[in-house]
Amino acid sequence: MKIAVLAGDGIGPEVTREAVRVLEALRLPGLVLLEGDVGGVATKRHGTPLPVETLDLARAADAILFGAVGDPDCDHLDRHLRPEQAILGLRKELGLFANLRPAKLFAGLEDASALRPEVASAIDLLIVRELNGDVYFGEKGIRTLVNGERQGWDLMAYSESEVRRIAHVAFKAARGRRGKLCSVDKANVLETSQVWRDTVIEVARDYPEIELSHMYVDNAAMQLVRNPGQFDVVVTGNLFGDILSDQASMCVGSIGLLASASLGDGTSGLYEPIHGSAPDIAGKGLANPMATILSAAMLLRHSLGLEAEAARIEAAVAKALADGVRGGDLGGTMGTAAIGDAVLERL
Amino acid sequence: MKIAVLAGDGIGPEVTREAVRVLEALRLPGLVLLEGDVGGVATKRHGTPLPVETLDLARAADAILFGAVGDPDCDHLDRHLRPEQAILGLRKELGLFANLRPAKLFAGLEDASALRPEVASAIDLLIVRELNGDVYFGEKGIRTLVNGERQGWDLMAYSESEVRRIAHVAFKAARGRRGKLCSVDKANVLETSQVWRDTVIEVARDYPEIELSHMYVDNAAMQLVRNPGQFDVVVTGNLFGDILSDQASMCVGSIGLLASASLGDGTSGLYEPIHGSAPDIAGKGLANPMATILSAAMLLRHSLGLEAEAARIEAAVAKALADGVRGGDLGGTMGTAAIGDAVLERL
Ligand SMILES: CC(C)[C@H](C(=O)O)[C@@H](O)C(=O)O
Ligand SMILES: CC(C)[C@H](C(=O)O)[C@@H](O)C(=O)O
Repeated sequence: MKIAVLAGDGIGPEVTREAVRVLEALRLPGLVLLEGDVGGVATKRHGTPLPVETLDLARAADAILFGAVGDPDCDHLDRHLRPEQAILGLRKELGLFANLRPAKLFAGLEDASALRPEVASAIDLLIVRELNGDVYFGEKGIRTLVNGERQGWDLMAYSESEVRRIAHVAFKAARGRRGKLCSVDKANVLETSQVWRDTVIEVARDYPEIELSHMYVDNAAMQLVRNPGQFDVVVTGNLFGDILSDQASMCVGSIGLLASASLGDGTSGLYEPIHGSAPDIAGKGLANPMATILSAAMLLRHSLGLEAEAARIEAAVAKALADGVRGGDLGGTMGTAAIGDAVLERL
Repeated sequence: MKIAVLAGDGIGPEVTREAVRVLEALRLPGLVLLEGDVGGVATKRHGTPLPVETLDLARAADAILFGAVGDPDCDHLDRHLRPEQAILGLRKELGLFANLRPAKLFAGLEDASALRPEVASAIDLLIVRELNGDVYFGEKGIRTLVNGERQGWDLMAYSESEVRRIAHVAFKAARGRRGKLCSVDKANVLETSQVWRDTVIEVARDYPEIELSHMYVDNAAMQLVRNPGQFDVVVTGNLFGDILSDQASMCVGSIGLLASASLGDGTSGLYEPIHGSAPDIAGKGLANPMATILSAAMLLRHSLGLEAEAARIEAAVAKALADGVRGGDLGGTMGTAAIGDAVLERL
């Protein structure tokens, strides 16, 4: 079992280190961890954010543990040299079209959310975000208009087959949960959303037991604040999913706790914390590694079929939180390594 | 002084009626209110959501008081017949490119927000949303790919001049407030956002006293939950503005309280509550008319220069809320007309 470990930029290396310690502590027979450069650090070392060796490593691996990419030093570079292209490239090249982002309040964190405790504790949702299409991957560019001014443009699009495959993932996920699926779009304005909605309705015929609803994205952003407990599974496109899943993460108290899985057709997948590279606190040992540790748990479950080990890690994190282990993101004082130690002790 | 009153669909007529009563109670000399059909009701009566008479009326008026459009009966119609096209058409035809959406917690509503009272009471922000461009107004359509499947597509774009004019509105607004402007984009993925960001930075040279920051839209959605008090003025494109302003509205307790102004180059403008047509409660006299009444106040201020009268209306609404006047949106039992009465009494 080969796991590619791509730590990336900013706090990526620090938080990934703790997740690796947790994986190693499980002493899984035959587990091999292989490191690769990705993001701004790869641009600096190899002249490209996603070197071919890294891509090959990722392709050959049974799963990828990913830290974070993003580096302000690279903001002025051409788009193809920027760190973000690494994660976008991995998602596209490996066909990782389904991003699963669960959000649920951990016991003991009722007071950590900006939402009222009774609103926050009702949260138990899963955002299924499409990851290979939308305005992220359409043609784009900057052109000069006849009057001489610059215009930036990006093509947003979804075809039926792209919507169909993510819809199936979402309906199946709803089947394993509370049986409710909310599809989020902007069909009152966008043709992309019209095809999205038509296709989701068509796929719904295969899942008569699932209760399907549709919501415009502006309303969804509102409802996620007003009453997030109403959602079970939410399925949406790449751009809306980016926005709504970050919003949902904050509703449960901290972005430092949220893991994600990016899956394709096979069992391989990429697992990453949903927080970014946080350049402001990078290298200081302040970042909360729990989201990355929980991503490693998702990796064991989804790509390696090691449910018991995944549950063991999740229980250790939950126990640490219940015992009052808190990083700066939760108003506490514990650093990256100390939080890693606290989880390891409870494993 | 001619005001076009376009009540529209769903709860639009009920809430607009109360705002009209408030305007009439002010007995402004020379004020004429002229009604026109718009939205789904116009499609049913005239075969188009924005009849030419309505557009002419809107053009000739000094300002437009708008209710809401949106009607599930019309969801199956061709896009150009759907109610939403009326508001999009008015914004575009009248060149109303700047949408101002203030959000501030009213005294007495500390417990109405899903956010903790200390988080919610710090909210005092203004979202400046561009309203004439972006993926809303680019080319769009549904095409059949070579493999026979349908693909929906929408072109997202911003040119420098489009960004420049909305940026000036936002910088000026920040000058009249706490001097902070946050520009929201997704420049790590979108070329449209790259031109947006470059142009905002260029315009900033004219406003050295304003503190400018940039935030990715996913982070902004998160920060609006975590710590909305950090924002003063937020400027963003049409699509991100749609999402973030609805989210912000819920942070202050109810979408039933939020007014908006859509302005162009001259003094005319369109004023509407940011809630929609709410078909589920339409015609029942349950809707809270305060957002529309506050929109009428914005109309008096921005288009007619009647600051004192605007402030009088706003004070009456604030007093009513402080006195415990609550519609169903705030967990109360008062209906549309009763809330209108309560505001009128305090005028
Ligand atoms: C880094 C960025 C390109 C990325 C995205 O927008 O998808 C990130 O925000 C995420 O959500 O994983
Ligand atoms: C009705 C709809 C087209 C509109 C929009 O998306 O602009 C509405 O949501 C708004 O925010 O005014």
